[in-house]
Amino acid sequence: MFEQLGLIGCGLMGGSFARALKRAGLVNRVVGYSKSPSTTERARQLGVIDVEAPSALLAVAGADIVLVAVPVAATEATLKAIKHLVTPQMLIMDVGSTKADVVQAARTALRDQIGSFVPAHPIAGREVSGVEHSDPDLYTGKQVILTPTERTLTAHLDRAEELWTALGCRVSRMSPEAHDAAFAAVSHLPHMLAFAMMNGLTQQERADELLSLAGPGFRDFTRIAASDPKMWRDVLLANRDEVLAQSRHFQAALHQLEHAIQGNDDQALEDLITLASHTRANWRMGAQRKRKDDL
Amino acid sequence: MFEQLGLIGCGLMGGSFARALKRAGLVNRVVGYSKSPSTTERARQLGVIDVEAPSALLAVAGADIVLVAVPVAATEATLKAIKHLVTPQMLIMDVGSTKADVVQAARTALRDQIGSFVPAHPIAGREVSGVEHSDPDLYTGKQVILTPTERTLTAHLDRAEELWTALGCRVSRMSPEAHDAAFAAVSHLPHMLAFAMMNGLTQQERADELLSLAGPGFRDFTRIAASDPKMWRDVLLANRDEVLAQSRHFQAALHQLEHAIQGNDDQALEDLITLASHTRANWRMGAQRKRKDDL
Repeated sequence: MFEQLGLIGCGLMGGSFARALKRAGLVNRVVGYSKSPSTTERARQLGVIDVEAPSALLAVAGADIVLVAVPVAATEATLKAIKHLVTPQMLIMDVGSTKADVVQAARTALRDQIGSFVPAHPIAGREVSGVEHSDPDLYTGKQVILTPTERTLTAHLDRAEELWTALGCRVSRMSPEAHDAAFAAVSHLPHMLAFAMMNGLTQQERADELLSLAGPGFRDFTRIAASDPKMWRDVLLANRDEVLAQSRHFQAALHQLEHAIQGNDDQALEDLITLASHTRANWRMGAQRKRKDDL
Repeated sequence: MFEQLGLIGCGLMGGSFARALKRAGLVNRVVGYSKSPSTTERARQLGVIDVEAPSALLAVAGADIVLVAVPVAATEATLKAIKHLVTPQMLIMDVGSTKADVVQAARTALRDQIGSFVPAHPIAGREVSGVEHSDPDLYTGKQVILTPTERTLTAHLDRAEELWTALGCRVSRMSPEAHDAAFAAVSHLPHMLAFAMMNGLTQQERADELLSLAGPGFRDFTRIAASDPKMWRDVLLANRDEVLAQSRHFQAALHQLEHAIQGNDDQALEDLITLASHTRANWRMGAQRKRKDDL
């Protein structure tokens, strides 16, 4: 399907994409670049990439598909660095967790070449990072949201959809703004809460003793707190307004629970927990929406 | 080791205990009672108990070990109901998630027989309930905290420790008050936050669409939100002061993150996330405490 992948950022997300494409026989050659030369070298040693490029620009040379898998805050500089070798035939995607800022960065950096760019967000990840943890199955069975700009070429958008589908993903399309509002609620907020949970514990005197007593519920609840700090710093800042709005929704719900507890109102408390419990028990990851909507 | 287990409450926790004891050959016969006759019948059909008792009192008749596995708020009434058949040779335990209230209930209900009672909290559970989900491995490898009253007989305490150890658990002892303070932090608070997360979402107009987009991070973060409403209503009310104190710690940590986001302070935000991420990445469930302390 593709001749050469130019991979910029050979970490968990980028490395997993390259391995998935290779395994599916969808690309013949992967030329990779990471900011850290040791990462690029490690990616080649692991067979994740075939050729090390000395720069982002040279990773793009001769590629018919490019994946930019860098922290979202580095998107604009990366796209600027490769702009001179971008061709109209080239499909360029990213994997960032925020999309309005990425689209804005692409407009600024790519200008007339923006038709090649298909912003993508695969709903996949792990709490560890680095090419050592890359996994050709990271994206299998996951959702991928494409958020085309108004100037993205339809042909590229369709090829992107076809590609992710071939990797076993379920693909949907949203506007960048609707994407960011939704993921503030279901991804960015939970991460922020998990960070706050850990810090609220750590800042107590007996933190070590408390942590030694924690069990499986705590383990799962806080798993995402181990996520990459720089990546999540960028995500929370890039989507600041939506994240803070979702935090207000959460705190209102928390105060309802606290109010019922303070007032010893067992019926109100049971009703609130029942609402949460039923909603969660009936949720299935990746289930179809009940109605098609203008998210 | 024991002749007859009297099981009061044949749900997930009680049923799993009976199955673990039987599999380990530690008990010859299980007589069970649940408030709902259909549950008791189902437990017998599944082989979790051998004999159905028509009342809590009759489940205790002839038992040398009794497990009270009912919602914590029902502990006092349950112990009152069985008091007349409690003997000094009998080991009585519970599995409640809060301990100060259980100890108080035992003092009131058992009076002179309180020497038989060893309050126990196995740090195990699932987000589903009912005897159908009982599992002889539920407690394997988990921690169990024993919180003896000042009048618990040493012989019973030692037998309880021996029993849980034989089931593959790591047993430790704490005061009821220290237990409740610690578990407010590492268990009750995460549950309350998971409930609030779900309700903050559910109360938004586009809840269905938002939920359809949620991925693996959300799945793990909210798993405990599906827990049993009545059980958690009782836990949060029984441990109200400690839970509210932990919620204040959490909210202070959340406001630190919000403040850094609002002020676009990328270094402060990265530092806060790094603290959380490192703490979580270095945590291992059930690892020994760094120092032995007076928790």
